[in-house]
Parts: sequence; C-alpha cells; structure tokens
Amino acid sequence: MTTVLHLDEIRRLVRIPDLIREVEAGFVAYSEGRVDVPPVGFLHFEQPPGDVHIKYGAISGDEHYVVKLASAFYDNPKQNLSASNGLILLFSQKTGELKRILLDECWLTDMRTAAAGAVAAMHLAPEQVRCIGIIGTGVQARLQLQLLRDVVDCDRCLVWGRNPARTQQMIEELQSDEAMRDWNLQIDVAENIDDLVSSCNLIVTTTPAKKPLIRADRVQAGTHITAMGSDDHGKQELESGLLAKADRIIADSIAQCIDHGECCAAIRDKLIEADTIVELGDVIKNSNLGRFDESQITIADLTGVAVQDIQIAKLVERALSAAGVTGEGV
Amino acid sequence: MTTVLHLDEIRRLVRIPDLIREVEAGFVAYSEGRVDVPPVGFLHFEQPPGDVHIKYGAISGDEHYVVKLASAFYDNPKQNLSASNGLILLFSQKTGELKRILLDECWLTDMRTAAAGAVAAMHLAPEQVRCIGIIGTGVQARLQLQLLRDVVDCDRCLVWGRNPARTQQMIEELQSDEAMRDWNLQIDVAENIDDLVSSCNLIVTTTPAKKPLIRADRVQAGTHITAMGSDDHGKQELESGLLAKADRIIADSIAQCIDHGECCAAIRDKLIEADTIVELGDVIKNSNLGRFDESQITIADLTGVAVQDIQIAKLVERALSAAGVTGEGV
Repeated sequence: MTTVLHLDEIRRLVRIPDLIREVEAGFVAYSEGRVDVPPVGFLHFEQPPGDVHIKYGAISGDEHYVVKLASAFYDNPKQNLSASNGLILLFSQKTGELKRILLDECWLTDMRTAAAGAVAAMHLAPEQVRCIGIIGTGVQARLQLQLLRDVVDCDRCLVWGRNPARTQQMIEELQSDEAMRDWNLQIDVAENIDDLVSSCNLIVTTTPAKKPLIRADRVQAGTHITAMGSDDHGKQELESGLLAKADRIIADSIAQCIDHGECCAAIRDKLIEADTIVELGDVIKNSNLGRFDESQITIADLTGVAVQDIQIAKLVERALSAAGVTGEGV
Repeated sequence: MTTVLHLDEIRRLVRIPDLIREVEAGFVAYSEGRVDVPPVGFLHFEQPPGDVHIKYGAISGDEHYVVKLASAFYDNPKQNLSASNGLILLFSQKTGELKRILLDECWLTDMRTAAAGAVAAMHLAPEQVRCIGIIGTGVQARLQLQLLRDVVDCDRCLVWGRNPARTQQMIEELQSDEAMRDWNLQIDVAENIDDLVSSCNLIVTTTPAKKPLIRADRVQAGTHITAMGSDDHGKQELESGLLAKADRIIADSIAQCIDHGECCAAIRDKLIEADTIVELGDVIKNSNLGRFDESQITIADLTGVAVQDIQIAKLVERALSAAGVTGEGV
C-alpha cells in the first residue's frame, strides 16, 4: 500500500543530530561507490522563471530507492506562495512498488542541504572559528547557520545580502528563532562581501549567483568556504582563481561538481584540474585528505547529491517505524 | 491542492481514438522542437532484477509539466504481483506545485506505448496489410495488437513467443477479449520467427530481447516493422543489417534511439549513419519522409518519449474536467 505523509507530520520526525549523522554516512557510502546516483535531471522554465531538479538513486542493499523532485519558481512569493516545492517518493527495491509519498514541500531538501553544510564544516572548518560568514538571505542562509550550531563553537556571525532590508529582517528572525535561542551568537550585518570575507574564517555562500561573489585575493589563510548555491549549470559564487588558490577543494560529488558546480567554472577557466578534487566522503573517512593545517584554505563545493535525499528519507522512515505511525493510505 | 487518481478511475477516462490522436500530436510537437525532453533517467537492480525509467518534460506553454516513473521488476509475477509499476505526476508550469498524482500502476505507460505503435502503423504500414505479426506475449504484445484495430484493415494475425504455452494463452485471451470481439481477426501461432516474418507485412516486436530476433534476409519487400522493445541500453530486437536494408528508418526520438534503441546497435555496427534517420513527428507532418512506395521496407524504432506521457496525462486531465471530477485530495 502507498501511504502519504505531509509536512507537519514530517517535521516532527527529523532530529538535527541524527540528520547530520545520516547525511555524513550517505557521503561515505557515495564515495565508496555503494550508491547508484545517475545524473541530475533538470527542467527550466522562463515565463515565469522556474527550475526543477530531479534527483534519484539507490544504496545497494537498501529497502527503498528514492526519487526526489524539487522546484524553485522565483515569482511565487509575489502571489504569497513559497518559491520552493517538492516531494520525495520511496519505492521498494524488491518490487518497484511505490511505498511512501513524502509531501514535504521541499523542506526535506532544505534540511538535507543544510546538513551537508554542517558535515563539511565538521570536517573542514579550522579548529578556532573566529566568525561565521553567511552570504545570502534565503532559506538556506538561515538553515546553514542554524545547523552549524551543532558542529561549530563560535559566538560571532556576519551576514551579507544584496538587499539590506531583507538582511536585517533575516537577522531579526534568527535572533527570535526558538532554535537559535540557547546559542549565544552575536549576528551582525556585513557592510560588504570583502569585509565579511576578511573577518570570517568559516564562510557559507547560499545564493543563486551567476557571477562570482567572493574574490580570490580577499580570502585569508586558514579560511574554510562552503559554496552551496551552484546547483545548476551557469551558477557560480566563487571566483575561479579562489579554487586555484585553495589548498584543498572538496566536492560532494566530483561527477556533479565537474558538470555544474564551482569546480566546473574553475576547470572551464583552466585554473584547476579535475584530478585535484577530493570527495567529501573520502575526507570523512580519511581526515588527511582534508584540512591538516590551520593555515590552509579549504573549499567545499556542494551541488546536492541524491544520496542526501535517500538518507533523509530513511531517517523519516525509521522515525515513523519507531513512532508506530504508518501514514495515511492513498 | 494535490489530488490523487487511481487506476480504476483513470481507465474510465481514456478513449482509444482520442489517445492515438493525442500521441500523434505529441510526436509532431516533439519533432517541431516545442517540447523539452531531457534524457531518460535509468536505475537498474540485480537482486531481484528490476529496471526503472524516469521520463519527464514539458511542452512550451502547457499548463503542466509531467514526470513519469515506471518500473519493471521481472520476478514480481512469482509473488503474484504485476511486474510493472508506475505513476505520473503533474506539476504547474507556473508555480511548480504538484497538482495531480496519477497512480496508474503503469497502465498509462502501457497505453501510450501501444498508441505510439498505432501512430507508426497509421503512417508507415503498407496500404494492404496481408497479415499482422506480433512478436512477444507480454502486455505490449496484446495492447499493440488491440490498438492496431483502429488504424489497420486486416483479418489475419500471427503471434510468436518463446514459450508456446504462454503464446497459446495470449491468443485465447485475445479471442475472448471484449475489445477484440467485433474485430473479425484470425489469430494463429507462428511456428517460428522466420515463418512469421515471411508471412506478415506489418510486424510489431515487443520483447526485452538483448540479441536480435529478426534476421535481415528474411524480411520481404513492402514490410513495415515497429520495434518497441529496445527501451534501454543493451536491448536489441532487429539484426543491425535489417536497418541497413530498410528504405526508411523512423525514430520516435532520434536522440534517444541513437542512445539506446535499435538505431544505436546499427550505428555501433557501422551499418547506418545517424543522419539517415527520420523522426516520426516529421513523417506525420510530411508523408514523403515516410513510405512512398508499397515495396519499401520501413522500420519504426520506438524507445518511448516523455511527450507521450505528457499527452496521455493531458488526455486524462481533459476527460476529468469534462466529467466534472476533481479527484481525491491528499
């Protein structure tokens, strides 16, 4: 039987520390070659502008295979609709039957994306994080910061966004957010990106930028940058020269990052070679492949891999079983 | 709001003549470049053996974009389960919202696949069809024959399948089928494929064969063959030499057939060139591109294109509106 679960039910089932662990384990499985993740499917619309991503895959021996559909329609907020939409489908690996429809409205995608940022920071951030820098003011800007609480010890944060009013609003919302309350974090607006970059040694970029935001010459020794905006062809948040300057470039998926991540732009500009990129799952298993010196510059290029969708779907399934909930049949 | 529709409801909404017209129009739109159809997504499982196809796309200016998931798990019948499973999702092209879940259990895929065979026969079969030949005994073998009734005037049919008992059973089922009753069609078992090929001048191959079934030297002048089994890498029903011998090779999608259809094998064997292949949508618009002589050999290579899924989903939506049905909210 196929059952359906809605966002309000799903939200109650996801605990952040468990999620970070699941996503971390997923990257290891992926880099060990135990996950079949075909290339991401894309659809693009122009009037109104919208992007659709289809990510799907299976971990060998798992109970389910997973198909995730996520979209962003950028004019939706004008109609008071969320820009993001999405759902996750779980099918039996034994029979192909559709077992569960998770009508999560893209929330699971947002959460597993933020969890990947936390995993990257756990393994790549310098030991002493002086100040966290968040670039962008969307859903991921907030979530990336919130999920860093579990993995980083730091009490200062700078935020930069194109729109000053929205940046201020985001800071106010974060300050009054339940999830942030017991994190004694001072959050301020950065005057410009260069200021943020020179003050922060753990930076997360969360924008849909198509032109680089961070200049190579501004990044200090000992900085880690997680770039998670470039999830599609033509997007780029970091100057290609910054990847050339970095001591380590870590990709969630080398195949995807070469196709459409920050790495793609730097390879196109002939500033890095694909074989210098290390995969996050390999760094998790062998820390020598990541940062081994506080003065190094490290970059995590996150494009979002279907294994994250598989792992968060499994987390929901496990929590459902533990709660004895089966969902509503359709 | 998202609504869900089940197979029993969906079945009542699809009229065969309308379906054939919709699929025909879909191929025209596709060949005119009005449809965004990214490459098919595949997942493969070994224990137990299973294949998953993800087809998706959008016709420019339509209300919806469509994602179709279909699977075949070949050991399912041992557990009294259908080998095929599937569903179609309709999303708004304006907002990305999930509007409808068609839980059709792969029936819509089966129907739109059979309709493509009917469209190919309409435009490519010789005027005088002496005898229809069906190779294979699965769901498509039956449906391809049933849908030919609307487009071909013929009273003889030969069927060949690997398993004689299943072949006999299929013939008996077809003879007692409501949909076949007023078609005065004599259906017999062919002793072997060569006999079938030499007796029939409209042949449909519907198998998951990985080695060619039809030999080039057995095919008579004036024969049309629709090969619809090779929907994945490694499948092949026709000897490559047969494509070299044919006067016309017509692909549902040149891009897909070059990647994994009969054309793929013949190009790999260096027996045909990709630029000699014509697209079905172009033949529909301009019959000079198809058969123009009763003595020609024509081959339609059908791999299944997402535009067929789009068109059958639209047909269901239109029938729903006409019936004033909105479906059950989830």
